Amino acid sequence: MAAEMTAAQLIEKHRPTLDQALEAIRTRAYWSPHPEHPKAYGETAAADGAAAFEALRGKRFELTQPGTDDWTGQEVSPYGPELGISYPHPDVDVLLPAMRATIPAWRDAGPELRAAVCLEILARISARTHEFAQAVMHTSGQAFMMAFQAGGPHAQDRGLEAVAYAYAEQTRTPGQAAWSKPQGKRDPLELSKSFTAVPRGVALMIGCNTFPTWNGYPGLFASLATGNPVLVKPHPRAVLPLAMTVKVAREVLDDAGFPADLVCLAVDRPDEGLAKTLAVRPEVRIIDYTGSTAFGDWLETHARQAEVHTEKAGVNTVVIDSTDDYKGMLSNLAFSLSLYSGQMCTTPQNLLIPRGGITTDAGPKSYDEVVSDLAGAVSGLLGDDARANGLLGAIVNPQVKERIEAAGGLGEVALASREVTNPDFPGATVRTPVIVKLDGAKPDSEAAYLSECFGPVSFAVAVDSAADAVELLRRTVREKGAMTVGAYTTDAEVERLVEEACLEECAQLSLNLTGGVYVNQTAAFSDFHGSGGNPAANAVLCDGAFVANRFRMVEVRRPA
Amino acid sequence: MAAEMTAAQLIEKHRPTLDQALEAIRTRAYWSPHPEHPKAYGETAAADGAAAFEALRGKRFELTQPGTDDWTGQEVSPYGPELGISYPHPDVDVLLPAMRATIPAWRDAGPELRAAVCLEILARISARTHEFAQAVMHTSGQAFMMAFQAGGPHAQDRGLEAVAYAYAEQTRTPGQAAWSKPQGKRDPLELSKSFTAVPRGVALMIGCNTFPTWNGYPGLFASLATGNPVLVKPHPRAVLPLAMTVKVAREVLDDAGFPADLVCLAVDRPDEGLAKTLAVRPEVRIIDYTGSTAFGDWLETHARQAEVHTEKAGVNTVVIDSTDDYKGMLSNLAFSLSLYSGQMCTTPQNLLIPRGGITTDAGPKSYDEVVSDLAGAVSGLLGDDARANGLLGAIVNPQVKERIEAAGGLGEVALASREVTNPDFPGATVRTPVIVKLDGAKPDSEAAYLSECFGPVSFAVAVDSAADAVELLRRTVREKGAMTVGAYTTDAEVERLVEEACLEECAQLSLNLTGGVYVNQTAAFSDFHGSGGNPAANAVLCDGAFVANRFRMVEVRRPA
Repeated sequence: MAAEMTAAQLIEKHRPTLDQALEAIRTRAYWSPHPEHPKAYGETAAADGAAAFEALRGKRFELTQPGTDDWTGQEVSPYGPELGISYPHPDVDVLLPAMRATIPAWRDAGPELRAAVCLEILARISARTHEFAQAVMHTSGQAFMMAFQAGGPHAQDRGLEAVAYAYAEQTRTPGQAAWSKPQGKRDPLELSKSFTAVPRGVALMIGCNTFPTWNGYPGLFASLATGNPVLVKPHPRAVLPLAMTVKVAREVLDDAGFPADLVCLAVDRPDEGLAKTLAVRPEVRIIDYTGSTAFGDWLETHARQAEVHTEKAGVNTVVIDSTDDYKGMLSNLAFSLSLYSGQMCTTPQNLLIPRGGITTDAGPKSYDEVVSDLAGAVSGLLGDDARANGLLGAIVNPQVKERIEAAGGLGEVALASREVTNPDFPGATVRTPVIVKLDGAKPDSEAAYLSECFGPVSFAVAVDSAADAVELLRRTVREKGAMTVGAYTTDAEVERLVEEACLEECAQLSLNLTGGVYVNQTAAFSDFHGSGGNPAANAVLCDGAFVANRFRMVEVRRPA
Repeated sequence: MAAEMTAAQLIEKHRPTLDQALEAIRTRAYWSPHPEHPKAYGETAAADGAAAFEALRGKRFELTQPGTDDWTGQEVSPYGPELGISYPHPDVDVLLPAMRATIPAWRDAGPELRAAVCLEILARISARTHEFAQAVMHTSGQAFMMAFQAGGPHAQDRGLEAVAYAYAEQTRTPGQAAWSKPQGKRDPLELSKSFTAVPRGVALMIGCNTFPTWNGYPGLFASLATGNPVLVKPHPRAVLPLAMTVKVAREVLDDAGFPADLVCLAVDRPDEGLAKTLAVRPEVRIIDYTGSTAFGDWLETHARQAEVHTEKAGVNTVVIDSTDDYKGMLSNLAFSLSLYSGQMCTTPQNLLIPRGGITTDAGPKSYDEVVSDLAGAVSGLLGDDARANGLLGAIVNPQVKERIEAAGGLGEVALASREVTNPDFPGATVRTPVIVKLDGAKPDSEAAYLSECFGPVSFAVAVDSAADAVELLRRTVREKGAMTVGAYTTDAEVERLVEEACLEECAQLSLNLTGGVYVNQTAAFSDFHGSGGNPAANAVLCDGAFVANRFRMVEVRRPA
């Protein structure tokens, strides 16, 4: 079959973007080719996207992949409606060999053409960002604007970043080398050497419920760009955004003259546990996973035939020592706690506040004042229902709701959760954050603040001093892991202690954020997401280590 | 204490070498700063080195490291004499915390100064290459010239290569970045970001008997250059070369104003199994290991708190299909089988030869002719005892000798092993290689040729055809792993099949070597040692993946 797009066309189209991405990961300055504003996608894009999403509902999601033995799908929007979409269920004994068979053609394409094909996939996804936003919103429960930005341009950025790292890593070694070793008066020894990046095998990407595209794209594109076929296993509650991704990828691969089966979908039946089956298959040599610590640990322990990249759970901490912008600190923290109802792996959980209070530009504030002022800031931010709905989104699953309801039993409630009505989606569960006061010196509080309580529950933990806060921060990161650490201080020595703790315990630190940047947000090409060096995650989005072991370099040497 | 060498002096001295190494790993052209010829080290260097080695014998090897609770050491030269050296035995509960305490100062030095310190260590080792050659010879059993070259300049090259990769990887991300995100008409969001490479923790390097420095230096220097303290646990039969390395490293670190305890030695008592104890200690976060598959597998399974890099055993294959230089092929293979008595992880074991014979520039040759001509080439190469001793070295341990003696029971012996007398070292066991004929079609031969038979034992396996040879090659690499693959063919289609097999099974291929380059030798900066993609090894000397996970990048971001 003739390719609809030649290699030269694809490379010509996408090489400039790839070069900009390579430059961005080198300088780590701000850059993105994907517009954040919904209006940037054209006047009819929003309506078209919503219509396209609606057209998918209540139907089979057709894919041409081999080995389909059933149809399955039980997605219900956190906003209420059932999606009613059914997806192919794989016979893995058919699907995995078919995927393995795609390897030679894709390997022989080489790093540059693979990158260009990946960028074409991202470009076509980008063009349909409004449709993806609907799909992300109605699977994750994110509010529309967040589903649009995090599920669209920011996810595409993270995918592109992974492609750039993959390309850079594969091209550190030249394709050919001439080697000539002097031998004194004799002729030199001369060899001609070729180096080929070869894939490890089938890559399995196990998606999560809350950020199916944002957390899924880095692994998917890193594996594909390094030559591996990718089997996408979405979370059963968040299939659609990744099924759409698979479909686009298959179309682009086919148009470019490559086997579409390089990217396939695996959706399991209820309680089937397909991820466990797939994870230990000998064909599967790479796994990317975002989700619970329990299953992440299971994968690391059992999927020994694969390179396993995990992002699990952590306990994120903010040290509150002092500030020269008390109001800015409160509003920044209030936003961080509220965004997507705290259902981000990066949302702060433990706010460590000296029981003797803090110094601020508004005068000294006692522990109780800080907590009640923060509660007031959250209440103020979310006082208007329309604004609250736009920030909070919907509670993603019943377990989060249970945690909100149980939070009151953990300590003194400084801010109770409020039910918010969403007039557009009466079926949505929308809840404002809870803030619970805990005494860090009481051993019975530890069980609460040293466990991850995923969802809109934060603990205002009273500590003896800033130094005590730093010790608790260290212990929390070492034992429980952290995706983010925040700190507010005007004291150079406290800043030094917090930095030293983060360097030693390997956690990413945001200092004195009081404006429009939040501790729970990271920007592709500049910020690392996670550190890969504490229990919250064994990998980072995105660095050299994230891509370097997805391929191996095979050398063939012969006399020159 | 004032440093004897300032950071600026160290960097000025070594930056040009580092830059050349960085260029060499990028072009993969021939390069080395370490002379291969013994005479390049000065007129008195050989005598000085021998005297320095003799002066170490029969004494305690003093190191200033903390936590020494005993002295131990049982090295006996494969050439006969006991070394009589005893080394500090560690109380790991004292030593490991002391090593952890060195981390902040070394981390704060940054990648460039760390690289310069590593290069100073290598430079001081290089200056004592003759002494190291004696130590390697009398622990590995390598003949002097090989101990000199492989244990000296080639090992130093591999160490330098690892430093270059480590430096490149750490500096892919800048130390500082300014991030400014446009916000339409509002002021941009601006952050100042710093990025610090932080080490994982204590690195454990577990040395091997046969190439203590060559196989040890990459892991040692990769870990040290990325900021990790390194605990060196030598093979009990090959302690001295690594103890000398540790001593030099400690002196340089001290001279440069860093804690000497960044590099320490751990020598175990007989049958203590100290490596197992150390490998699962929580302080140990990186392990580099060369040795048996059994212990490598144990480490990969049990040392879950660490990044584990292993080089284990494989079954190396040469496909012999056809050649336009029959004599060159035979002499090249004879050398490869003989060098260090086949006690290299890269020595060919299985020679796959079509039972119908091969075509050559000297006319068609039957299977029997090829085997007997190869036997003749080996006999010719090793006919002179002085030359044989210079190539073979000594049998490293009694297990290898047992394997030589058992080889006759595995099939028809085409070339019997001969005992060679070494007049300089009457206590040495010196043996020429055995070649055994096996029929690849007979199932009872499989147990022999599909197991690693470490030492000077090769199998001439009769196969049905070149295609059959390629299938057996594939199966061997997939099931048993391979550090090297060789092939001789003048047929483009056979060449393509062999290349495709190596690309798919992930093995490094040498084609048609008939001159002075041998399949079992790889050159730092140009050749990869192993592929990391088949069961013989999970890591490569040296690539980005070998260094990328030895450190993590911690970001601190604050409002600009």
